[in-house]
Amino acid sequence: PVPNDQIFQYIDGHQKEYIQRLKDWVAIQSDSSDPRKRQDVNKMMEVTKDFILQLGGTVEMADIGEQRLANGETIPLPPVILAEIGNAENKPTVCFYGHMDVQPAKQEDGWSTDPYTLVEKDGNLYGRGASDDKGQVLALLHALESLINMNQDLPVNVKLFIEGMEETGSDGLEMLIENKKDTFFSNIDYIVVTDTPWLSKKPGITYGARGNCYFSIEVQSSKVDLHSGGFGGMVYEAMGDLIYLLNSLTDANGRILVPGIYEAVAPLSENEEDLYKDIEFDVDEQRANLGVKKFLHESKADLLMHRCRYPSLSIHGIEGAFSGTGTKTVIPSKVIGKFSIRQVPNMEPSVVEKQVKDYLESKFSERKSPNEMKITMIIGAKPWLTNMTEPQYHAARRAVTRVFNIEADMIRAGGTIPIAKTLEDYLGKSLMLLGIGGPDDATHGQNEKISKYNYIGGTKLYAAYLQELASL
Amino acid sequence: PVPNDQIFQYIDGHQKEYIQRLKDWVAIQSDSSDPRKRQDVNKMMEVTKDFILQLGGTVEMADIGEQRLANGETIPLPPVILAEIGNAENKPTVCFYGHMDVQPAKQEDGWSTDPYTLVEKDGNLYGRGASDDKGQVLALLHALESLINMNQDLPVNVKLFIEGMEETGSDGLEMLIENKKDTFFSNIDYIVVTDTPWLSKKPGITYGARGNCYFSIEVQSSKVDLHSGGFGGMVYEAMGDLIYLLNSLTDANGRILVPGIYEAVAPLSENEEDLYKDIEFDVDEQRANLGVKKFLHESKADLLMHRCRYPSLSIHGIEGAFSGTGTKTVIPSKVIGKFSIRQVPNMEPSVVEKQVKDYLESKFSERKSPNEMKITMIIGAKPWLTNMTEPQYHAARRAVTRVFNIEADMIRAGGTIPIAKTLEDYLGKSLMLLGIGGPDDATHGQNEKISKYNYIGGTKLYAAYLQELASL
Ligand SMILES: [Zn+2]
Ligand SMILES: [Zn+2]
Ligand SMILES: [Zn+2]
Ligand SMILES: [Zn+2]
Repeated sequence: PVPNDQIFQYIDGHQKEYIQRLKDWVAIQSDSSDPRKRQDVNKMMEVTKDFILQLGGTVEMADIGEQRLANGETIPLPPVILAEIGNAENKPTVCFYGHMDVQPAKQEDGWSTDPYTLVEKDGNLYGRGASDDKGQVLALLHALESLINMNQDLPVNVKLFIEGMEETGSDGLEMLIENKKDTFFSNIDYIVVTDTPWLSKKPGITYGARGNCYFSIEVQSSKVDLHSGGFGGMVYEAMGDLIYLLNSLTDANGRILVPGIYEAVAPLSENEEDLYKDIEFDVDEQRANLGVKKFLHESKADLLMHRCRYPSLSIHGIEGAFSGTGTKTVIPSKVIGKFSIRQVPNMEPSVVEKQVKDYLESKFSERKSPNEMKITMIIGAKPWLTNMTEPQYHAARRAVTRVFNIEADMIRAGGTIPIAKTLEDYLGKSLMLLGIGGPDDATHGQNEKISKYNYIGGTKLYAAYLQELASL
Repeated sequence: PVPNDQIFQYIDGHQKEYIQRLKDWVAIQSDSSDPRKRQDVNKMMEVTKDFILQLGGTVEMADIGEQRLANGETIPLPPVILAEIGNAENKPTVCFYGHMDVQPAKQEDGWSTDPYTLVEKDGNLYGRGASDDKGQVLALLHALESLINMNQDLPVNVKLFIEGMEETGSDGLEMLIENKKDTFFSNIDYIVVTDTPWLSKKPGITYGARGNCYFSIEVQSSKVDLHSGGFGGMVYEAMGDLIYLLNSLTDANGRILVPGIYEAVAPLSENEEDLYKDIEFDVDEQRANLGVKKFLHESKADLLMHRCRYPSLSIHGIEGAFSGTGTKTVIPSKVIGKFSIRQVPNMEPSVVEKQVKDYLESKFSERKSPNEMKITMIIGAKPWLTNMTEPQYHAARRAVTRVFNIEADMIRAGGTIPIAKTLEDYLGKSLMLLGIGGPDDATHGQNEKISKYNYIGGTKLYAAYLQELASL
């Protein structure tokens, strides 16, 4: 095989091309949450397919059925890419997962530039999906391209499993995995998810992720919205009830008040805290970058553990209330509060669901409101945790050293990668999260970006990982 | 003068025309809150001017300057109509106030039909502005037309004062009143505001209105929105603080918890409660119509008093949080809670402002959150209350009897009519709120409507009132 150095040189020489392709891909508004943009998601899948074909792969566009919209209509789900590049008997096979859909984004939400026009500024590439997950998938595809162009071949067999509905819950994906368990997914040795950020400038390899139980609380006080002049003082307002319920979820320090929640959390094992002390993470710099005055926890280890190995609860917002600028004098008739609990081993979504419902229902009955209240767990994704001593983790750590000349941080994700748990459960193979995003990429937020350092360095990382994997 | 009966017959004979004109006017999307619709507001003012000219009036389109938008741009405010029909020395002069702008409305908000297409169904006319305030102003203009066509003259001199920015706070209006105090507004005997609903099917004459102190609470926890996976458990979330503050405003029964608020409320005078016992108001029917399970107060008098002679607090919503459908996993960086207090004599907005700020600031400091918090009183409109024995009230009561064969209910509005207080303060003349909307018109809500009964009966009411005023 061609030495890493030459591969890295090749990659450095093709930066412009890599950025241009990311620009082309970001321009496709593949927002999976908006049914009106379904054609853009489909187009994104086509463009991805075309690039894989260009690399010499074979591609199946797997049909995963339809999506039922809130209004009762159904529209086709975007196809899932099942691709193969190489199938030599004597080589191990690694399957990469990524997604081509993005979170919603509008410039009015507070973006400095158009979210769908990739803009380079101060070493960063700004645009929706630049990091999550178009940039990361592209880095992998460019790594494959570099290896193919330099070696005329890949050091391992590669499968690509790329979907277009990740940001809305990967509709239809689990069934596809089950259906293809004995065909596409049968002869796989390693699974790699390319959809996670590092924790700092230092590359991170991820061996765990929190789960997510996403809840809605719906309270209704009247048939239609009322004028606060004409009806204020007459009605038990739904907003008052909802605000009360939401306020009962956490204390001022973010501690979850739902009884029983902390009981299932795996106790801290011996020396576990030390793992967090070694991780590169500048608390003060992070604070300053985020514009946060003070974090919930003082020490680095404490903070990192609360980020990924303890549960947290966030209130996201309220649907049905007045959310615009200005001064609407409305008593909203039906309001839906949204919050979610990130959970960790050994919490179980079904147990969390019961704990939350029992608690909120008892709180609501204490309040003696005459209004209707309904709690729904919309998402119940399990946490995932694996053993970081599995062979492919060694390959990844060695690859990090080759590219960046440092030791990788071994980290757990604060976010949820439901696909990790699903793939592991169905396929029973070693799974690793090897992403290349930065900690401040603002995925899901305004001004999402990936740094050129991560994008190009990440391309090298995937290339080196594949070479290391072959020599395990 | 032509007897009332013949006028009423004329009005009955022109119903179709009156409904068609309302349809034409509702179709103009004169939403004053949306700068992109400013041309529609302007068009609405032009159409109104044209109709007044057609009635033989003279019209001045008064320029009231510019509006500064949130983004720093300025756009012209719509002109205000200052019109006169008749100026005989021997006749009293009555000045009517109304507005031609409307609240925002989108069918997706839950309207059964397009808000800007007037639809007749089961005796009701549905459309944004059908009641507030296009329908009421049109009833007045049609009343004038009927009197002119039947009498060749009006029994009194009429002035029309019609604006296009009422729903967003009547920008520029107070200065115009001050500037025109000694010209357009100089020789006025009576002022009538045509922008209030009745309390039941029975016509109501309004002699008071609550004020409105509209507040925003802004809390910021980070520079940009954060992903709840990556940052949940690290940050004192702005939403938690805001929800806590909003929850501290009222108890489960809607009682305002801000200290001092109830102290300035005028004590109940002797026999005052009796006034409310006589008002037509079917508590159970109202409850059923609104789809409300239980009202905050049991007896009719109690309920009505809490609707108009005691203060109330409503939480309208939150700006900056997630408000869409679905499951966005965001930690909003900056959230702005909106609530308002309807106040009554002898509460003072400046005192309410201080009480609310002191209370929330002390609550916030108890919480020891590191986040930034800022409270602003965006609107501070005073309550208004007058003596219902003034002569024009007699004219209106007699007019109600002539048209509907019943005694009018003398009522106080739960909502705020800032213009009433302003006009009374500047001009020092007798002021009355004589509206013709129904109690269930859903102004500011979905499926706003006016009943044909109110629209046509209201046209007669304005005609009869003008005749009675002449014979005082
Ligand atoms: Zn992703
Ligand atoms: Zn994402
Ligand atoms: Zn109005
Ligand atoms: Zn209004």
